Amino acid sequence: MSGESVLLTDLYQLTMLQAYWQRGMNDTAVFEFFVRKLPEQRNFLIAAGLEQVLDHLEDTAFSAEEIGWLRQSGRFDPDFVDSLANWRFAGDVDALPEGTVCFADEPLLRIVAPIREAQLVETRIINLLQLQTMVASKAARCVLAAPGRLLVDFGLRRSHGAEAGLLSARASYLAGFGGTSTILAGMRWGIPLFGTMAHSFIEAHASEAEAFANFARSQPTGTTLLIDTYDTEQAAAKLVGLVPRLTAEGLRVNAVRLDSGDLGEHARRVRAILDAGGLSAVRIFASGNLDEYRLRDLLRGGAPIDGFGVGTRMNTSADKPYLDCAYKLQEYAGLPRRKRSEGKLTWPGRKRICRSFNADGRMTGDTLTVAADRTGQPDLIVPVMRQGRRLAPSPGLGVIREHVRAELARLPERLRELDPAAEGYPLTVSEALRALARDADRASGLDV
Amino acid sequence: MSGESVLLTDLYQLTMLQAYWQRGMNDTAVFEFFVRKLPEQRNFLIAAGLEQVLDHLEDTAFSAEEIGWLRQSGRFDPDFVDSLANWRFAGDVDALPEGTVCFADEPLLRIVAPIREAQLVETRIINLLQLQTMVASKAARCVLAAPGRLLVDFGLRRSHGAEAGLLSARASYLAGFGGTSTILAGMRWGIPLFGTMAHSFIEAHASEAEAFANFARSQPTGTTLLIDTYDTEQAAAKLVGLVPRLTAEGLRVNAVRLDSGDLGEHARRVRAILDAGGLSAVRIFASGNLDEYRLRDLLRGGAPIDGFGVGTRMNTSADKPYLDCAYKLQEYAGLPRRKRSEGKLTWPGRKRICRSFNADGRMTGDTLTVAADRTGQPDLIVPVMRQGRRLAPSPGLGVIREHVRAELARLPERLRELDPAAEGYPLTVSEALRALARDADRASGLDV
Repeated sequence: MSGESVLLTDLYQLTMLQAYWQRGMNDTAVFEFFVRKLPEQRNFLIAAGLEQVLDHLEDTAFSAEEIGWLRQSGRFDPDFVDSLANWRFAGDVDALPEGTVCFADEPLLRIVAPIREAQLVETRIINLLQLQTMVASKAARCVLAAPGRLLVDFGLRRSHGAEAGLLSARASYLAGFGGTSTILAGMRWGIPLFGTMAHSFIEAHASEAEAFANFARSQPTGTTLLIDTYDTEQAAAKLVGLVPRLTAEGLRVNAVRLDSGDLGEHARRVRAILDAGGLSAVRIFASGNLDEYRLRDLLRGGAPIDGFGVGTRMNTSADKPYLDCAYKLQEYAGLPRRKRSEGKLTWPGRKRICRSFNADGRMTGDTLTVAADRTGQPDLIVPVMRQGRRLAPSPGLGVIREHVRAELARLPERLRELDPAAEGYPLTVSEALRALARDADRASGLDV
Repeated sequence: MSGESVLLTDLYQLTMLQAYWQRGMNDTAVFEFFVRKLPEQRNFLIAAGLEQVLDHLEDTAFSAEEIGWLRQSGRFDPDFVDSLANWRFAGDVDALPEGTVCFADEPLLRIVAPIREAQLVETRIINLLQLQTMVASKAARCVLAAPGRLLVDFGLRRSHGAEAGLLSARASYLAGFGGTSTILAGMRWGIPLFGTMAHSFIEAHASEAEAFANFARSQPTGTTLLIDTYDTEQAAAKLVGLVPRLTAEGLRVNAVRLDSGDLGEHARRVRAILDAGGLSAVRIFASGNLDEYRLRDLLRGGAPIDGFGVGTRMNTSADKPYLDCAYKLQEYAGLPRRKRSEGKLTWPGRKRICRSFNADGRMTGDTLTVAADRTGQPDLIVPVMRQGRRLAPSPGLGVIREHVRAELARLPERLRELDPAAEGYPLTVSEALRALARDADRASGLDV
């Protein structure tokens, strides 16, 4: 990915690094990434993006070209710039496994490393974790809104750049989508690929029927025909005559796609036309400005739609295209730290998350406490990297998908709804963590 | 950029390509990219992203690895896959110069090429043009809201991935921002870099004053100190004692940064503290959840803020994180084409845009007509690539910035406001274009 240049970071990271270098400051720092506040439109988040963070931490380094550019920029002490040639991330990472349900104030990732390593990677870590967590969370809502339906990521074209498109394909697949239209995501991660045809294909032909026939012939094992270029119902009626002829040639028309107008109403009419014409095996696939709300409304309205292409609004998380997230210093040189900026008070120190469940296996509440607290309950945050090396290979997207499926099944019913839950998910901050916060404030000369 | 794999596209592009290949269809196609409808929150757009599109068109090809993967996928005719080894874009491109003000239905870009070349590049063209046009348009609103103030892109961390962060730095700079915090954008395009310090730097030190002093010493030519980690006004008061001592060491404190709370109120108090302490040369820089609306409100309220870091909301175009845009077939094999899907009717054929001005040089209205129409007025759409090769090197960001500045000065006053203009910008569709649309509909067997 283009992002793997270490200079894909904020200038202040290097400026601070130089100051630390000049003062000889390089004690162990603990940073945690968390979301300060859930968007109003989200009842939970799905942690995602860890795999790309670990890739970045293992690979990132200053190239000779970058060192040369920094030198000639005149901004930095030349000896400092030369020292960057040896910069590597060799720290420790603990994290929520990808696909884990999480909430505000809960660390998705903790870095423990000399401060010059831990600081420089801040920008890219936020950049990677925010994007995939945001998209996976949005996609999980689509999955909850359309149980049993095939959902396909169609959003590459209106994603914010190449990487956003690729990583959205990954994030939506791990959240439960059936696949993507983005070929490179199929090649890179084995995500199932789906595709239909564009209006231009129809328009390039002398007639819609000729376009349908040519397309079916080019894909003998099965095809989906787009039927809304001119008149949706007229196109469906044409298929009643055409499909038996194509079938006789040994071809298969699996489905039709609707992409405009009132999708529910068109689906009902098209279903009736196809059924009356003996084509009840032909499925209906719909796309166009879809998101979890429209999926819910279409299915509540009984629309006979078997699958959906979900694009722009999911990939851009259009109702909330960013998370209020941060990567914060929690400890330095063995002492807890926190900032106290207005509205941005954070919990210091290394933390653990313990989750409680009821007899049905549904989540009932989390406790946030200090990592050293022996609660008897497992910590949701687990070790994933030591001294700059992964402890295990990626679990793979299949395993992560299964984890998400199980996590969604454990969610309290009220959090599975699309509308904001009147009662949020309970997070208890332990007395041990509150005491640590008081210590941190005393250390910075402030009283709670 | 990572996006340069030709497989960063939708599966259906290749499926259609195979169908065209099998039928021997490869006549000249004309596609145009345009925005169907401006977001309610935008009175105009700034065209941007052409440079990256041209890079993509010049460079993109199937690698041996990609050919191999497509072969083993079993989805395609092996002979078709082999033919892709020779696929190149060798078509023509006409476009609005980057930085040009534009509106709904106006083509930002036209591709004229054999359909197998013109179709495959659709996804990436939309992906690149949408992102930068969206961000440049949002950034231009920030520039209009904060005349004479330094604006700096701070948004990499919450951009949607690496490429979104990089290209947002470019798009906001061409729209009139003074620079970015993204180092790689400085290295790649020479965009001026700005940076301050993070809260973690303060917290890693035993005291705020020590952190300020260390940071100032590491940047003798000038620094900006972040003063909201614990208590903003107390930090400003500390500087009154500290800055003269640092100045005596030959160091410079240029500015302070505010990043939380009521920025206007803090700025007033901090300004008073600094002025009373003899530090009226120290500027105030502010950041934190800013966008064009907050910039306007802060400055209308008289906040003594000299510069702003604008991040997340600008880079994600948070109030409207996508454009209703499309890349549509307008002509094939010499005949005009258009789809008639509900709510998505488009104007067919190759088009020209003519712009009229009043005596003050302000824009008064555009006419959209067929490219062959000799209107006597210049066409805003100009040739940029022939047979797959650029006609001229990139004008460079400095030239594009100057173009944007001139374009914004030519906007009618009502369109320069942030609120939606009661009266939109007039676009006249010529009778020649209306006649062509009727021809296209007749050709597809439909009457207007």
